[in-house]
Amino acid sequence: MYDVEKVRADFPILSRTVHGKPLVYLDNGASAQKPKAVIDAVARAYSEEYANVHRGLHFLSNLATDNYEAVRAKIQRFLGAAHEDEILFTNGSTMSLNLVSYGWAAPRLQPGDEIVLSVMEHHANIVPWHFLRERQGVVLKWVDIEPDGGLDPQKVIDAIGPRTRMIAITHMSNVLGTVVDIRTICAAARERGVAVCVDGSQAAVHMPVDVAELGCDFYAVTGHKLYGPSGSGALYARRERMAEMRPFIGGGDMIREVHKDSVTYNDPPHKFEAGTPGIVQMIGLGAAIDYMTGLGMENIQAHEADLRDYAVERFKGLNWLSVQGTRPDKGAIFSFVIQGAGHPHDISTVVDQKGIAVRAGQHCAMPLMEHLGVNATCRASFGLYNTRAEVDALVEALELCHELFA
Amino acid sequence: MYDVEKVRADFPILSRTVHGKPLVYLDNGASAQKPKAVIDAVARAYSEEYANVHRGLHFLSNLATDNYEAVRAKIQRFLGAAHEDEILFTNGSTMSLNLVSYGWAAPRLQPGDEIVLSVMEHHANIVPWHFLRERQGVVLKWVDIEPDGGLDPQKVIDAIGPRTRMIAITHMSNVLGTVVDIRTICAAARERGVAVCVDGSQAAVHMPVDVAELGCDFYAVTGHKLYGPSGSGALYARRERMAEMRPFIGGGDMIREVHKDSVTYNDPPHKFEAGTPGIVQMIGLGAAIDYMTGLGMENIQAHEADLRDYAVERFKGLNWLSVQGTRPDKGAIFSFVIQGAGHPHDISTVVDQKGIAVRAGQHCAMPLMEHLGVNATCRASFGLYNTRAEVDALVEALELCHELFA
Repeated sequence: MYDVEKVRADFPILSRTVHGKPLVYLDNGASAQKPKAVIDAVARAYSEEYANVHRGLHFLSNLATDNYEAVRAKIQRFLGAAHEDEILFTNGSTMSLNLVSYGWAAPRLQPGDEIVLSVMEHHANIVPWHFLRERQGVVLKWVDIEPDGGLDPQKVIDAIGPRTRMIAITHMSNVLGTVVDIRTICAAARERGVAVCVDGSQAAVHMPVDVAELGCDFYAVTGHKLYGPSGSGALYARRERMAEMRPFIGGGDMIREVHKDSVTYNDPPHKFEAGTPGIVQMIGLGAAIDYMTGLGMENIQAHEADLRDYAVERFKGLNWLSVQGTRPDKGAIFSFVIQGAGHPHDISTVVDQKGIAVRAGQHCAMPLMEHLGVNATCRASFGLYNTRAEVDALVEALELCHELFA
Repeated sequence: MYDVEKVRADFPILSRTVHGKPLVYLDNGASAQKPKAVIDAVARAYSEEYANVHRGLHFLSNLATDNYEAVRAKIQRFLGAAHEDEILFTNGSTMSLNLVSYGWAAPRLQPGDEIVLSVMEHHANIVPWHFLRERQGVVLKWVDIEPDGGLDPQKVIDAIGPRTRMIAITHMSNVLGTVVDIRTICAAARERGVAVCVDGSQAAVHMPVDVAELGCDFYAVTGHKLYGPSGSGALYARRERMAEMRPFIGGGDMIREVHKDSVTYNDPPHKFEAGTPGIVQMIGLGAAIDYMTGLGMENIQAHEADLRDYAVERFKGLNWLSVQGTRPDKGAIFSFVIQGAGHPHDISTVVDQKGIAVRAGQHCAMPLMEHLGVNATCRASFGLYNTRAEVDALVEALELCHELFA
């Protein structure tokens, strides 16, 4: 039995007020709050067990290295990777995706080679490919979504041509909540020798993920959305693909030997992890993953599905509210505008006065905004600690906005 | 009056024991311990004031953004930069130096163009330039050091040829403690239109830095050595140079507009800061800088100069100890071997049993090790909380090593 009140008690910030009202935090799509277990793990790492990793032979260095490296196996299990060395530590999804772009794609793709991506990608899964377009003539091929926000995997597969080298695609839209059928896309892509790079920034937060079952080549996650520290993250890279990658960031730890006129590189995964890493951030991410798996990803998914269904039900009563993305199996992420009412920024400001944190803007997804024909939306994105009562609070605040603006 | 016992009380980890002995932490060159002010700032940011930055309009997002962006001015003042927008946030020196390599050098340097660097650079200030050698035919020109570990600035200036585009140089050697006369080098370089990229990872920890006075183009610092969180750091880039830089990491926040077939970029510094940043790490780095400037960089420098002089004095009594780097104005960093005795790793292990953390190895400086004709050294590197009594403890442990091994 998922006890959301017990869960909420684990998150110190949820007991604070905003503008004199209890905080209702519905900006999880941007970043999630942290349980005490994570905050304590970070404080303990600094207060009792800190040193640089991999470099010393002294007690604290060994201890910090053990604590830090233990997180690799946690992420391996969390994502269902076959091998621990398929997990690269990064400081977030943006770096993970740039690592694929600079490390795998840039040295391999030729002018005219194509990358297929959906129109609902986050900028983090667009701009690294735009770099390749600008700098080396790679062609971006876009796949549109359906009116309900769904993405037809066959349309992605049909976009694969003889020059397609990669598909860059989200597992869950940060704007619409749409879940993409990655498995079907990967099966077709692999038959055609096309790599699939999945942006799992949202999906890994809200549902169980198994990269081996999905069959993808790369899978990027970001710790700060996973209830872990800012500045933490990872990239799953299938062994065969990692072997094809060129080093990206140069510095300590990623080398074997450095001479005046030559350099040789370390074995993966360290080959792709240069310099002093986010030691304590990754230890904190390990604590976050322990926390999530302690609750159970299926239980989190079920709890959020209940919130989603309840929100859909409540929103139905607001006939002036336009919600983008209506797939019944979507994540609990709702982008909306109030018809005939103010700019989403104004909505957000009014809602904030009630203690409710939602986001307003383009959500780092301008091609999707263009596709939807809107300048901006409000977005309420739910997490494992949200409640039906918070859905009610949001609905009440939106009703006030409707009265004020419409 | 610098009260080192009061300072030590600010660092929780310094009260712990290792192998039953009080911790003597002399691995500051690898990473520094954190004062309670930093640990508390991190915990507070997560427990009370956390949200993503730049993206929301709600209360917590504005609060987190204010806390985060306030650190830019702190680093500006700390480094003496003329403008706040000359400070780029990164996750450490390695990323700062790679940002110079990918963002400034890679798009500008042609085959045969030269980068001058000293033989005592850290790998973080070597490998990014090796990438340019491997990938686009840039030539690396090395300047040797003097027998006392000093670097003659005239030798660096003499190495500048018609094809030299950049000098990549440390401000303080992480192995020898040597302080480099950056100002003289920069004056000559600027006359010749050559950029100077300074690795300040060590120097900024141990002495006041003023980039405007130094006259450098780039200056890299890393938070974890500055008594701040792992995964924090910055790059100073002079405005004129920043205007020449191409975006490096692609994602959210660094763009102005993203369309299917085009992308335009944000203004500096955000143009070079993609994705959700190390929000809480940078807030923690701000607390660390406040802590250091509260003590006073001149006071820290004087305290460490006393430790250096005392250590030099004590080491003189050990005629079997070879210390590398003997400049009287060096930082309190001592690399050494015991003549006729075991491998530095063995020394480190014995010393560790006495609760003393030193590092053994190549210190991410293999070209320097080659130049010195050693495979590895032990390194004791002092920080603002170390004491003369800890020098004594180290000497006592080294005497034990000499008895055991020699």
